[in-house]
Amino acid sequence: MNEMTFPLRTDGTECLYEQIYEHIKKEIKAGKLLAGEKLPSTRFLAEYLQVARSTVDYAYGQLLSEGYIESRPCKGYFVCPIEDLFQLEDIEEERQRDIGGRISGGLNGRPPLTQPETAADRSSGTEAHEGADANCCFRVDFSPYEIDMSGFPFSVWKKITKNILTFANSELFARGEAQGDYALRQTIAKYLHSSRGVNCRPEQIIVGAGNDYLLMLLEKILGRHVRIAMENPTYKRSYKIFRSFAYHITTVDMDEAGMRSDKLEQADVSTAYVMPSHQFPTGTVMPIGRRMELLKWAGGAERYLIEDDYDSEFRFHGKPVPALQASDRHGRVIYMGTFSKAIAPAIRISFMVLPDTLLEKYLKTCSFYSCTVSRIDQSILNEFIRDGYFERHLNKMRKLYRVKHELLLECLQPLQDRFAVSGENAGLHLLLTSRSGVPEGELVRKAASQQVRVYGLSESMVEDAADSATVLLGFGGLSEEKIREGAELLRRVW
Amino acid sequence: MNEMTFPLRTDGTECLYEQIYEHIKKEIKAGKLLAGEKLPSTRFLAEYLQVARSTVDYAYGQLLSEGYIESRPCKGYFVCPIEDLFQLEDIEEERQRDIGGRISGGLNGRPPLTQPETAADRSSGTEAHEGADANCCFRVDFSPYEIDMSGFPFSVWKKITKNILTFANSELFARGEAQGDYALRQTIAKYLHSSRGVNCRPEQIIVGAGNDYLLMLLEKILGRHVRIAMENPTYKRSYKIFRSFAYHITTVDMDEAGMRSDKLEQADVSTAYVMPSHQFPTGTVMPIGRRMELLKWAGGAERYLIEDDYDSEFRFHGKPVPALQASDRHGRVIYMGTFSKAIAPAIRISFMVLPDTLLEKYLKTCSFYSCTVSRIDQSILNEFIRDGYFERHLNKMRKLYRVKHELLLECLQPLQDRFAVSGENAGLHLLLTSRSGVPEGELVRKAASQQVRVYGLSESMVEDAADSATVLLGFGGLSEEKIREGAELLRRVW
Repeated sequence: MNEMTFPLRTDGTECLYEQIYEHIKKEIKAGKLLAGEKLPSTRFLAEYLQVARSTVDYAYGQLLSEGYIESRPCKGYFVCPIEDLFQLEDIEEERQRDIGGRISGGLNGRPPLTQPETAADRSSGTEAHEGADANCCFRVDFSPYEIDMSGFPFSVWKKITKNILTFANSELFARGEAQGDYALRQTIAKYLHSSRGVNCRPEQIIVGAGNDYLLMLLEKILGRHVRIAMENPTYKRSYKIFRSFAYHITTVDMDEAGMRSDKLEQADVSTAYVMPSHQFPTGTVMPIGRRMELLKWAGGAERYLIEDDYDSEFRFHGKPVPALQASDRHGRVIYMGTFSKAIAPAIRISFMVLPDTLLEKYLKTCSFYSCTVSRIDQSILNEFIRDGYFERHLNKMRKLYRVKHELLLECLQPLQDRFAVSGENAGLHLLLTSRSGVPEGELVRKAASQQVRVYGLSESMVEDAADSATVLLGFGGLSEEKIREGAELLRRVW
Repeated sequence: MNEMTFPLRTDGTECLYEQIYEHIKKEIKAGKLLAGEKLPSTRFLAEYLQVARSTVDYAYGQLLSEGYIESRPCKGYFVCPIEDLFQLEDIEEERQRDIGGRISGGLNGRPPLTQPETAADRSSGTEAHEGADANCCFRVDFSPYEIDMSGFPFSVWKKITKNILTFANSELFARGEAQGDYALRQTIAKYLHSSRGVNCRPEQIIVGAGNDYLLMLLEKILGRHVRIAMENPTYKRSYKIFRSFAYHITTVDMDEAGMRSDKLEQADVSTAYVMPSHQFPTGTVMPIGRRMELLKWAGGAERYLIEDDYDSEFRFHGKPVPALQASDRHGRVIYMGTFSKAIAPAIRISFMVLPDTLLEKYLKTCSFYSCTVSRIDQSILNEFIRDGYFERHLNKMRKLYRVKHELLLECLQPLQDRFAVSGENAGLHLLLTSRSGVPEGELVRKAASQQVRVYGLSESMVEDAADSATVLLGFGGLSEEKIREGAELLRRVW
């Protein structure tokens, strides 16, 4: 317990939860808490430090999310083995120096569950995931791909648009830079740095009309015959896109930490596509240990990690988990984000951050491709982010989604003896797995008999969609009333 | 002369020039005027028909443009040999039935030089050709890639945008159809039909953010290893794009009718990229005979013609030349157009019309790619075209460009003993070829010494940029004052 003895400032100048979290992280990285070592129980530590137990719970929760510690059922919390601790130390220090205040600030000791952070603290680009066919026969469609459009900041968007068209000179209607307007790239770089820990210069950013397009451009940069690893299940749209290229796709097994690095080492691939902040569809948050393993894999040769940070904005518990790119020292991560999910699918603005080696290739071989986003739209988005509207919008949406998220969890409570709920840490959907192994097909059919649409996990499976007993329930696009109605119908029929 | 005896309506109900043009075309197609046959001189025919000589001039001019007749220096006008006359007959009849009134109407006997047609009569999508590096050291930049932004219909665009944002429901901000909104595709189909003779259903249209993107998508549809023919010189941006694919590019010699079909037959290619309405950079208008030859080439096997109809709006003399697609019976033409050149480069909206065989492939293999244009932008453009603003805008721009075009021709008059001027029928640039063979490099350098930028033809050359003595002078982006200043400086130094 020596490692747990540290001066806790209780004068209110520093957040208690933060202090505990930072202290334990530091001890782990300094090698004072060793891999496999057991941490004191939350109850014990709370008493010891004379703080509320929930404060320790949140500190442990954050360490868990980021993969510094793990929880063993009925045994307690243990320190995780972490690849390349020394390197991690450097990176972390650098990150703290750069953005520490922002990444860790702002909670004032209150648990994050009831106090949303500022938008800049946890948001990033996202991709609206594949829209399922609209089917008007359903009374309730638990689509995991829909977002809540009622929250669209209509009047602000209109105001900015009007101003831009009023004050704009004809320049705005002329051809812009191939990578996107520099002003917007500056704004994005700043935003990514403060909210996601991403380290990049505006020069590394390429703005494009949607992730699909950017992946097409990336194909031109990476070359035509990439051997790529994907998780299974994964984001099916990206899978289809890679398949439409000449890419050779290998699926790599997942465990509860995401893509298995040992399996990745064995696979004959040069690139891996991952969603470390919130894997789709499983909701897995990749812990820091696994991240370091993947980075080590990529650093060992000319390999790349494509990080699709599609919905990191919508994390409801704990602090934002930084991007994988934030820990990348060797320029192996291609970071992709979008504003389609956080603002509106119609806002066709995504971006990718290229490491320098790939930036060079892009400039040599692809920079003649015109930017696919109009300068007017770029200017509107730039003002929207720059003037703080995006942050406010994210806060609003996060609250709105949290309410729905908790409502759905609550409504599904009566089903918990028959179903295990997972993916509840982030994003706009939950996963329900039948404890008795009822196949997903049956679950989907039964739901459909009540005019409720749920989504089988196998829809996101790349190969041998085995015998899944898991369905996805999205809540982003549903009103509270519809969530209640849908859950009630499911309770009746399942 | 029997063929020239026909009832000319002189009561003013039908345009004289049109009647002569239509009659001769009909006689050629009916085989009454045979290939190689000499036409009466314009002077003779004018006297014979008792009309102004300029009326006959315009009729012959249009037949020349469309390739029905040819002019042999000091000898007169002769009927061209035309491939597959019988097939042509059918198509033409169909086209006349469908759109004849619109394609040929509206001139009221006045020469087109002083009477602009309606926009719908000759416009189509275009692509703003590659922007050269802005170089502020130049006093006058005769860039062939710039357009006049002072004509941008600012207040109308603002008004439509405001209305759309006011009345729009949240639907507009949701994900739209992959091919683009159906309403916009309907509007484009209607517009293409009336103005360019293009026959297509909205289902065949794919809307995308720029031609570059659409070519990337086309790569996914046509497959990865296309063997493609291009003219030389050609539009360099398309060349670069094809080169960035795994395409095998073969250049096919041009003559004054465009890509040589005999050479194309010999080339081992399955696809040809052409700009029949106005070849860039030579300004060649492909005559109907050559068009039929190309269509025959493509129809013989599973071959395709990519028709880049990038600036057919800006033709200053005669009627609009219909699109190649309008003569396509066998579904071999992929028609591409854009609004970047006709409206503004920032309007990143282009489209392509797929023949049915390729549409099927698209639907099977590529329809999961999200549309790259935001629905808001699509709606604005849709209203802009549908409510007649586009037509008005084109009329205005055509007048504006014609004034500049004539001014530049006039200013270059004193240089005509040293330079041959070509490409003067359409588009936003002229070509000057040194009669004494002064190499383009010297012309460019001498111009630069006066801070005037002109563009060597070899910039558009794909291979062995030989010993060009030709430079391009664009006038689209220059004020009248700048055109005068630039031409004056060139006169001094050349």
